[in-house]
Amino acid sequence: MNKRAIFYLCSLLLLVMGCAMVTAIPVAWAMKDSMRVIFRFSLCAFVVCSISSFIFFKSRRRKDEPEFKTGSREGFLSVFLSWMVASLVGAIPFMVIGGMRLPDAFFETASGLTTTGASVIDTSTVLLSGGKLEGGLESLPYSLLFWRSFLNWFGGIGIVVFVLLIIPLLNPGQSGQQLYNAEVPGLKTSSDQATPRLVSSIRIIIVVYLMFTMLSTFCYYIGGMTFFDAVCHAFSTVSTGGFSTKAASFGYYKSPFLQWACIIFMLLSACNFTLIVRLFVSRSFQYFKDEEFKFFFALVVVSTLIIGALMYVQCSGGVPSTDGENIPRTVESYLRTAAFQVSSLVTTTGFTTSDYTMWGIPAALVVLFLLMFPCGCGGSTAGGMKCVRVLLVFKLVFSEIRHCVFPRAMTDIRLNGERMESSVISKMMAFLFLYLIIFMFVGALLPFLCDMDITTAFSASLTCLSNIGPGLGDVSPSSTFSWMSDSAKYLLSFTMIAGRLELYTCLVILLPSFWKR
Amino acid sequence: MNKRAIFYLCSLLLLVMGCAMVTAIPVAWAMKDSMRVIFRFSLCAFVVCSISSFIFFKSRRRKDEPEFKTGSREGFLSVFLSWMVASLVGAIPFMVIGGMRLPDAFFETASGLTTTGASVIDTSTVLLSGGKLEGGLESLPYSLLFWRSFLNWFGGIGIVVFVLLIIPLLNPGQSGQQLYNAEVPGLKTSSDQATPRLVSSIRIIIVVYLMFTMLSTFCYYIGGMTFFDAVCHAFSTVSTGGFSTKAASFGYYKSPFLQWACIIFMLLSACNFTLIVRLFVSRSFQYFKDEEFKFFFALVVVSTLIIGALMYVQCSGGVPSTDGENIPRTVESYLRTAAFQVSSLVTTTGFTTSDYTMWGIPAALVVLFLLMFPCGCGGSTAGGMKCVRVLLVFKLVFSEIRHCVFPRAMTDIRLNGERMESSVISKMMAFLFLYLIIFMFVGALLPFLCDMDITTAFSASLTCLSNIGPGLGDVSPSSTFSWMSDSAKYLLSFTMIAGRLELYTCLVILLPSFWKR
Repeated sequence: MNKRAIFYLCSLLLLVMGCAMVTAIPVAWAMKDSMRVIFRFSLCAFVVCSISSFIFFKSRRRKDEPEFKTGSREGFLSVFLSWMVASLVGAIPFMVIGGMRLPDAFFETASGLTTTGASVIDTSTVLLSGGKLEGGLESLPYSLLFWRSFLNWFGGIGIVVFVLLIIPLLNPGQSGQQLYNAEVPGLKTSSDQATPRLVSSIRIIIVVYLMFTMLSTFCYYIGGMTFFDAVCHAFSTVSTGGFSTKAASFGYYKSPFLQWACIIFMLLSACNFTLIVRLFVSRSFQYFKDEEFKFFFALVVVSTLIIGALMYVQCSGGVPSTDGENIPRTVESYLRTAAFQVSSLVTTTGFTTSDYTMWGIPAALVVLFLLMFPCGCGGSTAGGMKCVRVLLVFKLVFSEIRHCVFPRAMTDIRLNGERMESSVISKMMAFLFLYLIIFMFVGALLPFLCDMDITTAFSASLTCLSNIGPGLGDVSPSSTFSWMSDSAKYLLSFTMIAGRLELYTCLVILLPSFWKR
Repeated sequence: MNKRAIFYLCSLLLLVMGCAMVTAIPVAWAMKDSMRVIFRFSLCAFVVCSISSFIFFKSRRRKDEPEFKTGSREGFLSVFLSWMVASLVGAIPFMVIGGMRLPDAFFETASGLTTTGASVIDTSTVLLSGGKLEGGLESLPYSLLFWRSFLNWFGGIGIVVFVLLIIPLLNPGQSGQQLYNAEVPGLKTSSDQATPRLVSSIRIIIVVYLMFTMLSTFCYYIGGMTFFDAVCHAFSTVSTGGFSTKAASFGYYKSPFLQWACIIFMLLSACNFTLIVRLFVSRSFQYFKDEEFKFFFALVVVSTLIIGALMYVQCSGGVPSTDGENIPRTVESYLRTAAFQVSSLVTTTGFTTSDYTMWGIPAALVVLFLLMFPCGCGGSTAGGMKCVRVLLVFKLVFSEIRHCVFPRAMTDIRLNGERMESSVISKMMAFLFLYLIIFMFVGALLPFLCDMDITTAFSASLTCLSNIGPGLGDVSPSSTFSWMSDSAKYLLSFTMIAGRLELYTCLVILLPSFWKR
C-alpha cells in the first residue's frame, strides 16, 4: 500500500475544499453577514488551506523520485478516504459558524456532498451550546446557506474535477480508470475504456454542468428568486442534491414557471451525460433511441399521471403546500405538484412543494416509494439503482420466463441492440442484490439505534442509500432527521457515502484480504 | 395443446377433492355437528364426485387410443388449472355450510391449499345472508374447521401425491419431471432427474409426511388438546399451513410443552425433505453437513435470541398473549414466545401465540419482517424465497466484492462443495428478482383496490406471496383479511397460488407466445 500517494490525493482534495471555503467569504460580505461570521469563515478557510498545503508539499512526488506506484487498492482507499475527509472538513463551517454538534454537521455535509439533501437543521436542532436553533434553517447566516448548496454542487461534479486533476499524476491507464469507475455511477461499457477519451468526455461533462448551472440560475432569477436564492437552488438542482435555502423547500416559490423550470432541470440532470455529450459533439439528438432514457421517461410520465389523477379524485379537501397554504385545485397545479414530487424523487433531488405523506392517499405513497428504487439514469449525478439496471432486470426476468416454455430459444439480453455479456449481467445483479441487502440491513439496524416505526426506518434507509432526501413516516418532506440519535445519524451518513460510491468501493475496504500482502 | 389430457388431469384432482370431502362426513358425525351440516357436506361430496367422475370417464384414454401427447405447455397449464379448480371446489363447503361469500370462500381455500394460513373468518365476516358471522371462527361447525385444516394438509402433500398418481399416465420422462419441477419448490439439482428415482423419493416423502402428522397428533394429544384439535393442528403444523381451530390461534394453548412441540415440528417440516429421506435410506444424519440447513438454523437461533432479549429488556409492562392474558415474565416463556413467532414466520406456518405488533418494539418487527423473505429450506412445504437461494445470493455478492480487488481470483460459487453452473445461478437470480418485483407490484396495487396504509399493503403482499399468513399493520396476527375489498381478496388469492407455484408456472401462461402454434 502506497501511503504517500493516498495522503497526496487526500490533501489535494482538502486543498480544493479549502479554496471552496474562500468563495463563501465574498458571499458573506455581499449578503451582509455579521463580521463575526466573515471572520470565522476566513479562519476556517485559512486553517484548512494551510494544513492541506503542508501535507500536499510533504507528500508530493519530488523531481528525482520515480512515479507513484498505485494500484486498484490505493484507488479504492483514496476514494473512500477522500469522501470521509471531505465530509469531516466540510462540517467545520457548520460547527464553527452554525454552532452545530459534530454528528449533525457530519450528517449535513455528507448529505450535501453525496447530493442526498437530507437535513438535520430545523427549529429543534440541538446546538453545541445546548440550546436549540430557534429560528430554524432560515436563521442561519447567508454564507452558511451558500456553503450548504455549494456542497451539493461540488459533490455532484467536484469529484469528477478531482479525478480529472489527478489522472495525470497517477500511473497512466489502470488507476485513472479505476478511480473513474469508483466515482462515476452506472454500468461501465467498453466505450468508456480509453483514458484520453475519458479525460475529454469529463471536460465536456464539466462544461455541460457549468452551462446547466448558469442556465438554471438565469431561469430562477427571471422567475422571481433573488440572485442569491437562484444560485443556491441552481446548485442543488443541477447536482440533483436538494438543499434549499428555505425551510419550506421549493414550496416557498409558488410561481408555476419556477416549479416547471425546476422539474425540467431536475430531469435533464438525471439523464445520462453521455447523451448530452453526444448532442454537443456529434450534434445528434439520440435521447429517444436510448432504451434507458425511454424507460426513465415512461416512468416519470406514467407516475405523474397516476398521482395527478389520484390527487384530483381523492383530495377534494385540498392539497397543502409545504408552507401550509392549500394548492389551488386546478388540473395544471395538481399535475405540476404530482410532476414535481415524482421528478424530485426519481431524479434523487429531494426538493418538495407539497408533503406527499399529508395527502392521505396510500396509493400515491406506494408509487412514490417504488420510484425511489430505480431513480435516475446511469452516468448522471443521480443516485439509486439506476434505470438501466432495473430495465436489464426486467429483460432478464422476461427472458427466463420465456425460457421455461421454449427451452431452446435464444436468451441473449440486449441493450440498445448490443448484446450484454453474461459476466456484466452477473456483476450487475450482484450489485442490485447488494443494494437491497444494504437497504434492508440499514433499515433493520435503525430501530435498534433510535426509536422509530418500520416505515420510517426502511424509507430513511432507502432515501439515504439512493441519495434522495425525504422519505415517509417521520422523515417525510415536512420533517428532518434532527430527532434521530447520534448513532443513527452516523449510520445514515455512511449509508449515503456508500450509496454515492455505489457500495463496492466502501465494502472492499471491509474485506480482510484487502489489507493483506 | 392437448385439451383432453388437461381435462383428464383436472378431473382426477377433482375426484380426489371429492373423496376428501367424504372424509369430513364421519368427522361431522363424530363431533355431533347438526344433521343439516352432515346433509350439506354429503351433498357437496356427492355432487363433486359425480361431476368429476363424469369428466374423468369422458376424457380418459381408451384402450385402442395412442398415449396422450403432452409437453411442457400442457404440464404448466394443467398445474395452474388444477390449483384454480381445487381452490374453487374446496370453497364449496365454506359457501354451502358456512354461508360465506365467494371471494371469502375462495380466499380461505386458496390460503388453505397453498399452506398460507391467512384467514378471512372473524366476527366481522359478512355472510351470503348479509348478516355477520357473530360467533367468529369458533362458531363454525366442526366439520368445516376440519375441512380448513385438511386443506392445509392436502395442499402440503396432496399435490405431490397427485403427481405420483399421474406420472405413470403421462408420457414417460419429460412431463412427469416437468410437473414435479412446477410443483415442488426449491432448486433443481441433477440428482432429482431420473423419474424412477423421483417416484421412489416421493414415496418416502409421503411416508415421512404421514409419520410427522401422526407423531405431532400424538404429541399434541398427550399435551392436553382434544383429539379433534390435535389432528387439526397437526395437519396445519406439518404442512406449514397455519390454520387453527381457535380464534386465538396457538396462543389458546398455554402449555409450554405444546408450544415447544409445535416449534420443533414447524422447524422439522421446513427442512429439506431430502435430508430426512437420506436419514431413513442411508441412515446418516447429514443435517449439519448441509450449508442451507446451517444457514436456516443460524437464522432461527440468532433471531430468537435477539427478539427474546429485546422483549425481556423493553417489555417491562408485560407481553400479551393472543387471548389477551399477559405471558408470565420468565426467561423461558419470553424465549419460547420469541422462538414461536420466529419459527412460525420463518417456516411460513403462521401460527401465533402473541401478536408481535402489540409488543411496541419496532426493532423486533423489522427482524421478523426480514425473516419473511428467506423462509424455509428448498424441497420442503415452506414457501418464500428459500434459504438456499438467499445463501447463494450472499455468496455471489461476496465473490463480486472480492473480484473488485482481485480481478484474477476465481469466482466460482459453490454449494456443499459442488460448483454451481452460471446458468443455474442466473436462473435463480432471475427468480429472486421476479419474486421481489411481484412482491412490490402486488404491494403497490393493493392500496388502489382497498384503503390501507403502506406497511399493511407490503406486508400483506409478502405474507401471501411467501405463504406465511400474518403480516404487520392491519393484517397483524390478531386481525384477519376479512376487512379487505373483494378485488383485494382475489388479488391476494392469486398471489398465494403464484407464490406456491414459485411464480414461473403462473407467469408463463401470461406470455402471448405460450398460446401460439
